[in-house]
Amino acid sequence: MSDTLTNDRLLRALRRQPVDRTPVWLMRHTGRYLPEYRATRAAAGSFLTHGQESRAGLRGHPAAAAPLPAGCGDPVLGHPHRARRDGPGLYFVEGEGPKFERPIRDESDVAKLAVPDMESELRYVMDAVRVIRRELAGAVPLIGFSGSPWTLACYMVEGGGSDNYGRIKAMAFNRPELLHRLLGVVTDAVIAYLSAQRAAGAQALQVFDTWGGVLSPSMYREFSLPYLQRIARELDRGDGDARTPLILFGKGNAPHLEALAATGTDAVGVDWLVDLSEAARRTGGTVALQGNLDPATLYGSPQAIAREAARVLDDYAAGNGGSREGHVFNLGHGMSPDMDPEHVAALVAAVHAHSAR
Amino acid sequence: MSDTLTNDRLLRALRRQPVDRTPVWLMRHTGRYLPEYRATRAAAGSFLTHGQESRAGLRGHPAAAAPLPAGCGDPVLGHPHRARRDGPGLYFVEGEGPKFERPIRDESDVAKLAVPDMESELRYVMDAVRVIRRELAGAVPLIGFSGSPWTLACYMVEGGGSDNYGRIKAMAFNRPELLHRLLGVVTDAVIAYLSAQRAAGAQALQVFDTWGGVLSPSMYREFSLPYLQRIARELDRGDGDARTPLILFGKGNAPHLEALAATGTDAVGVDWLVDLSEAARRTGGTVALQGNLDPATLYGSPQAIAREAARVLDDYAAGNGGSREGHVFNLGHGMSPDMDPEHVAALVAAVHAHSAR
Repeated sequence: MSDTLTNDRLLRALRRQPVDRTPVWLMRHTGRYLPEYRATRAAAGSFLTHGQESRAGLRGHPAAAAPLPAGCGDPVLGHPHRARRDGPGLYFVEGEGPKFERPIRDESDVAKLAVPDMESELRYVMDAVRVIRRELAGAVPLIGFSGSPWTLACYMVEGGGSDNYGRIKAMAFNRPELLHRLLGVVTDAVIAYLSAQRAAGAQALQVFDTWGGVLSPSMYREFSLPYLQRIARELDRGDGDARTPLILFGKGNAPHLEALAATGTDAVGVDWLVDLSEAARRTGGTVALQGNLDPATLYGSPQAIAREAARVLDDYAAGNGGSREGHVFNLGHGMSPDMDPEHVAALVAAVHAHSAR
Repeated sequence: MSDTLTNDRLLRALRRQPVDRTPVWLMRHTGRYLPEYRATRAAAGSFLTHGQESRAGLRGHPAAAAPLPAGCGDPVLGHPHRARRDGPGLYFVEGEGPKFERPIRDESDVAKLAVPDMESELRYVMDAVRVIRRELAGAVPLIGFSGSPWTLACYMVEGGGSDNYGRIKAMAFNRPELLHRLLGVVTDAVIAYLSAQRAAGAQALQVFDTWGGVLSPSMYREFSLPYLQRIARELDRGDGDARTPLILFGKGNAPHLEALAATGTDAVGVDWLVDLSEAARRTGGTVALQGNLDPATLYGSPQAIAREAARVLDDYAAGNGGSREGHVFNLGHGMSPDMDPEHVAALVAAVHAHSAR
């Protein structure tokens, strides 16, 4: 695409290049699965409305990136259009995560799965990417998304959210080869899905391993990590300054930072349960790091938010030889709908003020 | 007390003394807040019924300890008897955690709190300890419990469970001195509560920091750890073989194992999100370790359960210079009510078989 980015701090930070201040963007759950996200025009319209609200709320401190509406970043198999016929029957309930009418339980369920054709079956997502990219007109980069193979498999096997992931863990213990087969197909689909988003105009890509943190380290190394490695290795992202950076975000991924940095990803996104100084030391400058303010900080006063933002920024620098390079400021997880936009504005302002070179 | 323990493996392992096989006991949520737990005789009766079921289920492989019914181990302030008058109004809903009618929100709420008199206001708990200790007749040691100051404060400020602990975190950010005052009173109560359980016959004591794992490391070091340190330092537990061991269990405590081992506790209980070899190496034999099988393993087949139990046992030994000493086998968290007692029996048998000297 020929549009020149006005604000390329995010991409520069993800490449560990110098920036004049630390870029910040926030993940948000708001309106995540509202029906309007599932049709191209409505999705773009809804996004742009939210974007304008954010810009107004941010009082001239726009964030450094525009995430694709989150509803577009979730399951890539059994999406609503084909689900009614032969897939697992994906559907959405307002305010909740994805659910499946026919959860994956045995080999015949796995055998029925196939990687959807991105430009026909998932055309509504790719059209949304194209529309949003055009509307952004180079103001900020557009980030594409997918759930991780393990996280998508959790929804597919459990049929929705879960308290203890008993069904998929039982499959892992009793039928590991079947779970690996499922994860293999899902990984193929995730790679195709991210590739298609990149081709449609996404300028950075993030994989959410939201449920990797429910796994013991030995299970994580068997059922989540290898599929993240495959994505980092097989997803063609281009080269040099034309490279589309990949971010592997994982809730509860602190025990695995070295392994994640070694996958070949460009960046690792971390939750708020690890000191960023430790994360930076352990990854040793081989990847950019994204994070990691506790989202609940946004319930604090603007003064407290500024203090905590400075702590996170300085914590990163302390583990990175005193340099802020290679840091993308973010929350350790998504914002909640009841958080005050004024507090978000205070956060963005504080990050920019404290990190200005 | 003059009863001699038939099975003292738990106490020996908590003191890091040699044992002929690794002791195992399980935390369970079953019937946690049923009304019958709240009256002395009923609590004891209910426990003993469960105990008999377990023994039947365990087919001659009894566990190494008898935990006090969990309903007795929770909040020590504002218990049901006094709540109606002036306390925060603790009540229980079947199948859920504790709830408060009048959550703690400001200084006047904190000012009203007082440490209850254990042998009058919490006499029903102490009577339960005495009855159960007598009925056990030395078969296995009786473990007394309390929530941690941070965890109890979470329930008191949030008014019950919470998705993101926004209220108590807002207090931490905006009114840290008020939260510290609350935590101080709660810690006084926890110490008095555990002391009274010990005096009534509890032979080991465990503190559950169930919600410490929702805190960023810097907040954990400010709002949870110092109060665990106070408990370990100020709780009189006796000396030598008459010493009543203290276990500090915490979900999500992996980042803090060195700090927890340095509190002066006898043992640290860990969840399933850390390799026990790493935990053993990092604590360097200064404390016993309790854990850490993923509870969901009990949804697996008996073969899978045996394999995973062996993995946990060997993982501990690998980090402890090849020795199994100082290990208490447990789940990384509580059992769920839908878990099969036959699978629990398979787990206990597997731990005993694999760890026999």
